Amino acid sequence: MHTSYQNFREYLEELKRRDLLVEVKLPINKDNQLGPLVRWQFRGLKSSQRKGWLFTHLTDSRGRTFDASVAISVLGASPAVYAAAMGATDPRDIPHIWEDAIQHPLAPVQVASQGAPVKEVILSKEQLSGEGVDMFPVPVINPGTDAAAYFSSPVWITKDPETGEYNAGTYRAMVKTSRRLGVMILPGQDARTHWQKARRLGKPLEAVLVVSPIPALTVCSVSKLQGSEYGIAGAINQRALELVPAETVDLLIPATAELAIEGYFRTDVLEHEGPFGEYTGFTGSRDYNMIFEVTAITHRKSPVFQAFISEMPPSESSLIRSVGLEAPLRKELRQRLPSSFKDVNLFEESGSNFFLAIQLNSPGLGEAWHALHVANAFTPNFFKWIVVVDEDVDISDLGNMIWAMSYRVQPHRDIEIARGKIGLLDPSAAPLTASAREHFYPGELGCSVILVDATRKWAYPRIALPEQQYMLDAKQIWENLGLPALTVQGTWHAYDLGFWPDDWATDADLAAAGRYLETGSRLAKERTMASYIETGEVVPPPDGA
Amino acid sequence: MHTSYQNFREYLEELKRRDLLVEVKLPINKDNQLGPLVRWQFRGLKSSQRKGWLFTHLTDSRGRTFDASVAISVLGASPAVYAAAMGATDPRDIPHIWEDAIQHPLAPVQVASQGAPVKEVILSKEQLSGEGVDMFPVPVINPGTDAAAYFSSPVWITKDPETGEYNAGTYRAMVKTSRRLGVMILPGQDARTHWQKARRLGKPLEAVLVVSPIPALTVCSVSKLQGSEYGIAGAINQRALELVPAETVDLLIPATAELAIEGYFRTDVLEHEGPFGEYTGFTGSRDYNMIFEVTAITHRKSPVFQAFISEMPPSESSLIRSVGLEAPLRKELRQRLPSSFKDVNLFEESGSNFFLAIQLNSPGLGEAWHALHVANAFTPNFFKWIVVVDEDVDISDLGNMIWAMSYRVQPHRDIEIARGKIGLLDPSAAPLTASAREHFYPGELGCSVILVDATRKWAYPRIALPEQQYMLDAKQIWENLGLPALTVQGTWHAYDLGFWPDDWATDADLAAAGRYLETGSRLAKERTMASYIETGEVVPPPDGA
Repeated sequence: MHTSYQNFREYLEELKRRDLLVEVKLPINKDNQLGPLVRWQFRGLKSSQRKGWLFTHLTDSRGRTFDASVAISVLGASPAVYAAAMGATDPRDIPHIWEDAIQHPLAPVQVASQGAPVKEVILSKEQLSGEGVDMFPVPVINPGTDAAAYFSSPVWITKDPETGEYNAGTYRAMVKTSRRLGVMILPGQDARTHWQKARRLGKPLEAVLVVSPIPALTVCSVSKLQGSEYGIAGAINQRALELVPAETVDLLIPATAELAIEGYFRTDVLEHEGPFGEYTGFTGSRDYNMIFEVTAITHRKSPVFQAFISEMPPSESSLIRSVGLEAPLRKELRQRLPSSFKDVNLFEESGSNFFLAIQLNSPGLGEAWHALHVANAFTPNFFKWIVVVDEDVDISDLGNMIWAMSYRVQPHRDIEIARGKIGLLDPSAAPLTASAREHFYPGELGCSVILVDATRKWAYPRIALPEQQYMLDAKQIWENLGLPALTVQGTWHAYDLGFWPDDWATDADLAAAGRYLETGSRLAKERTMASYIETGEVVPPPDGA
Repeated sequence: MHTSYQNFREYLEELKRRDLLVEVKLPINKDNQLGPLVRWQFRGLKSSQRKGWLFTHLTDSRGRTFDASVAISVLGASPAVYAAAMGATDPRDIPHIWEDAIQHPLAPVQVASQGAPVKEVILSKEQLSGEGVDMFPVPVINPGTDAAAYFSSPVWITKDPETGEYNAGTYRAMVKTSRRLGVMILPGQDARTHWQKARRLGKPLEAVLVVSPIPALTVCSVSKLQGSEYGIAGAINQRALELVPAETVDLLIPATAELAIEGYFRTDVLEHEGPFGEYTGFTGSRDYNMIFEVTAITHRKSPVFQAFISEMPPSESSLIRSVGLEAPLRKELRQRLPSSFKDVNLFEESGSNFFLAIQLNSPGLGEAWHALHVANAFTPNFFKWIVVVDEDVDISDLGNMIWAMSYRVQPHRDIEIARGKIGLLDPSAAPLTASAREHFYPGELGCSVILVDATRKWAYPRIALPEQQYMLDAKQIWENLGLPALTVQGTWHAYDLGFWPDDWATDADLAAAGRYLETGSRLAKERTMASYIETGEVVPPPDGA
């Protein structure tokens, strides 16, 4: 059962139907109460208990009240919420929905501006002289840390100045004045390419900041996609995205979004922006970043303003980021390693950025390394640790990863370090006082990545547990004894990993049948002189010794 | 409140009083039911639910019944059980008890044999011609995998043939015949040194296999201690260990143990032993190992036979091993890095062997690397991954470790790989068909270790969370709203890591007060030409740009 959404409000209704929305009607200060309140659910509730939040009675530290509402944590609160955003009911369907949509995008369609929800209210440049962008309840997400109210979940629409190709990307935006935003767009992000091309052409880069489009577009916007976010979002939502022209710039934008802020990025100068608490767990610096000058605002009446909880992981953005990065990477690896690729997992604890697990099924010679190289080449920005494991390792479980890294790796043989990576928001790259160049690409060879082949290099002996049948029999006894209910996690019985000689198997059967003395007697014929301890060479002893 | 134990039975009584013992009176087959049954608690219960087990009605696959009982999982079922074994009530006291005991051992005392519990029944060599060691309910721990019944929790007493120094060590022992055991003693283990010295002297090595002494001696036996296990166990138990002479060999053994098997290790020949499911998670191989010839058995009437659940981690032995290795390592590191050392943690998921975290407090220049080298030099056998982190990283939490390894490490700069380690039970060292030499020390340079400096190399910006006071205020709102109860885990508010300039602090306060437009206006004076994006150099723009 797939659910399509015409607009963001339909999505909130669906969350409500699924009991995945907390509605707060009490007055809440957007500057120092809203962010901390929602954050507690990421610090003190299990993932399965987390929900989306809707605040309908907002105030601020200046005593203002707002006509608009804020919806926050409504995309990445939990796998169940994320599934709802993708129109699915079962989180396990998420990877398939992604892969299908990437393979078969659904082109957007242009519709009439008249009657488009995003055009319900149109404010020209002249009408922005008062509060301007500050008329909306833009929250201060990390009060005491962030330097301003931030658009944490903006969908920035730009076009490549040369090819005309569209991009939708999420880049943090600081509220500076009624008509000026500060925006951080990092190396490797598509809008930065657009900006650099515009700069070379000597003109500004037109853009629209869209807030609260259908959820599929926002999840595409934070993902590392090749191809059009408009088309892939349409495919995810199983409904072609409807677009209308912006008022003051040459761009098509989603017709049913709650809010659109039109304008242009200056390409002549940059301005200090930040600090802002980032998904890495550390505050992102103040640095010279892009200036966005606003030329018009259009919006629905009483708009619902969407924000992210972006912060020290786990957070909303870490879940969204990980799933959005995994989807295109999965496609890439499946294409390159069709016979062995099984799955990937990007651990949220690394900010969904720096610790990647790849699972292969009986990889052929060299395939583990090919997988490591393909993942590393996927983007210059992400993945500091890439670890490839076998099919029997649970890549969602860090303990299982550590087990594989312990007993399937010889560091001198199975690990390579490669340089040349670009460091994004990575405080280990260079001191904060260093130049921007050093931050992104220190020492002329850049940041680095460590590739770990934690697959078995040869046949292994079987897992150190009892045979499955004995475990099942014992479970029956467990239940008969009335012992506490079991919640079985991970491996619970022996399995073969390629090396299990016939005599070992026979002797194990004898032992379970209590006949181990037969084995013990037989082994008296399998002796060597004690020099074996030093030489490793078997020298049969004289008869009778 | 400290509890001392005179003998193993007193300890079981204490477990019972603490509701930490499951007594099974149903008939249970020691060859294929006992191990699987207890194992379920490590596969399906939370650590806090796990207990020790006592089986009083044992049968076997040959239809025998036994006068003896089996106690299993009674030392390492959980931190609460382990604390009881150390005589403590709070698991948090365990490290201190260990450190005190290592610093101040309590010398053992010799007592009269007459009346010693371990001498209640004395069986000479001639009286062993029947069942011999097979008269006891030695369990098959991993039916379907293990080649025989194994002593999984033996305490082997040996003396250095040159210095006379005692050692107590735990080495797996396979029941082969009524009077012969197969024993695996690995490189780097003290008894192996004794064996090698005896071999050079051209004589066998006398030894006694002790079962169920006071719990403190067993935990010392599985630990990596420098110094006498007898003395340290006495100090842990706050009561000097009482010793009596063995009957047929020149060794003093614990007077109150349940069972003692006397004899000698042959040093002229070796014999096939194994396979046996090991703590690594994989089955330990069949290889040429030591032969132990039995010369006498003494025991209490109706002895209680202690066994370990040793298997794929987490298991009983992984908890015991980790605490026992951490204690002496903690002492070593504290001595070498007195101003910065804070704590260590050996993750059970690595078999309590291969993934070690070291926590330092504001380490000085080079101290992170000194800590890595000291830990690496501590033993040639253990620690494949050694990761040193700062004081703000929770070393008991793998997610937090991954976070530190993501944002405080540049692999090319902060990682070293060193060779020369000895591989014990490590299937990644060499194929199973390779020689023993290759298994322990492949490629003439041995196995390897990877050292990771995951400390901050310079001041970092603050943690990306709201200020503590805002979080506390929000928690009040959370409670007023009647939201689900919070179980707070890990970091929940911002803290400083050295870099937090005054203007960032001021602007953050302004933002929380809703005055961020003041900051935005001010920042218009902090601009640079856009060439900064390529050069990283600040070039002030012309006036008014």
